[in-house]
Amino acid sequence: MVKTTEHEVSTRGQGDGIDVTDEIRRAIAESGLAEGLATVFVSGSTAGISAVEFEEGVLHDLDRALERVAPRRGEYRHHLRWHDDNGSSHVRAGIVGPSLSVPFRSGRLLVGTWQQIVLFEFDTGPRTRRYVIQVMGE
Amino acid sequence: MVKTTEHEVSTRGQGDGIDVTDEIRRAIAESGLAEGLATVFVSGSTAGISAVEFEEGVLHDLDRALERVAPRRGEYRHHLRWHDDNGSSHVRAGIVGPSLSVPFRSGRLLVGTWQQIVLFEFDTGPRTRRYVIQVMGE
Amino acid sequence: MVKTTEHEVSTRGQGDGIDVTDEIRRAIAESGLAEGLATVFVSGSTAGISAVEFEEGVLHDLDRALERVAPRRGEYRHHLRWHDDNGSSHVRAGIVGPSLSVPFRSGRLLVGTWQQIVLFEFDTGPRTRRYVIQVMGE
Repeated sequence: MVKTTEHEVSTRGQGDGIDVTDEIRRAIAESGLAEGLATVFVSGSTAGISAVEFEEGVLHDLDRALERVAPRRGEYRHHLRWHDDNGSSHVRAGIVGPSLSVPFRSGRLLVGTWQQIVLFEFDTGPRTRRYVIQVMGE
Repeated sequence: MVKTTEHEVSTRGQGDGIDVTDEIRRAIAESGLAEGLATVFVSGSTAGISAVEFEEGVLHDLDRALERVAPRRGEYRHHLRWHDDNGSSHVRAGIVGPSLSVPFRSGRLLVGTWQQIVLFEFDTGPRTRRYVIQVMGE
Repeated sequence: MVKTTEHEVSTRGQGDGIDVTDEIRRAIAESGLAEGLATVFVSGSTAGISAVEFEEGVLHDLDRALERVAPRRGEYRHHLRWHDDNGSSHVRAGIVGPSLSVPFRSGRLLVGTWQQIVLFEFDTGPRTRRYVIQVMGE
């Protein structure tokens, strides 16, 4: 059995993160499935999905590390195409990736105690983000 | 239901990317499945799979960012083992990862308008790449 | 059909990696499934899962590259919260990610010859790691 739902959330721009773990738990509960795989996917090329301990310090540290890899005020060939300013966002999204799959069993998502599933905003300004939660199993 | 197909593509070496989104759409259509998960996996330790806006600028920018993390002409202990020159390729592949799972519903892959699934070549020369598309659902 | 198993492994701290490929093959064999998806997920926010050629040189090179992105002895806001020393571990885990899904067919995991699935320890000291293998298919 498969159940797919679409969700929306507002973000504040680069460096922001939204904890979507409880939304995934809700999707599992509503599906009635006991065991399977929950996949979160963000539809957009300047955001990403990963897991971290969700607290302001870690979000700040991750943003600072990604700044070393893809500095916000760096030069990007992508800017020449669209006269845009979010080259760093595209690069960060490509590295972190848009998707994460997490197993569940006995209706319980198998994340650690200090581990949350997070939608990361990499774009340079606030965005309305659409993401998909899909649960599959039995 | 599960359907797994193997595919081959030629690449031009480090920094190259192949848009495989339409191949995934074809696999979904041929499976006859309406709702489920499509997984792309590249069999090889010097390539990766992720999602980006597929245009030359972004490919160039991503390559340049990964050059900061794992410079092509850097020193790698892996080189000592095989007298090879692709230490940077192994590191980039490990960071980006070889796999991506994307939900579909009503037979439609739930990617964004400017979001493509891309096979990234990280090796230092042209390669023939084999990758797998697996669709699972109902 | 879905089968989920939990596993434990000891690590030696940041830079260590554990090859879990054979454990995944065993889970597929024991499930009796012929075709489907194997997902590995590490429950913890300072470790990651990816695929590399599993040899000491690559592990060392990857650690050194991640040191450029998130230096172990750097300053992290996360340290202020818990008076901890593993800010670099949280950042590396967020970038590499905790999950990997690999297709199998005819009971065979579709990895390349030189490609292994690896649990990466990013924490600053030895840890006992719990991870999940889930196989799903038919």
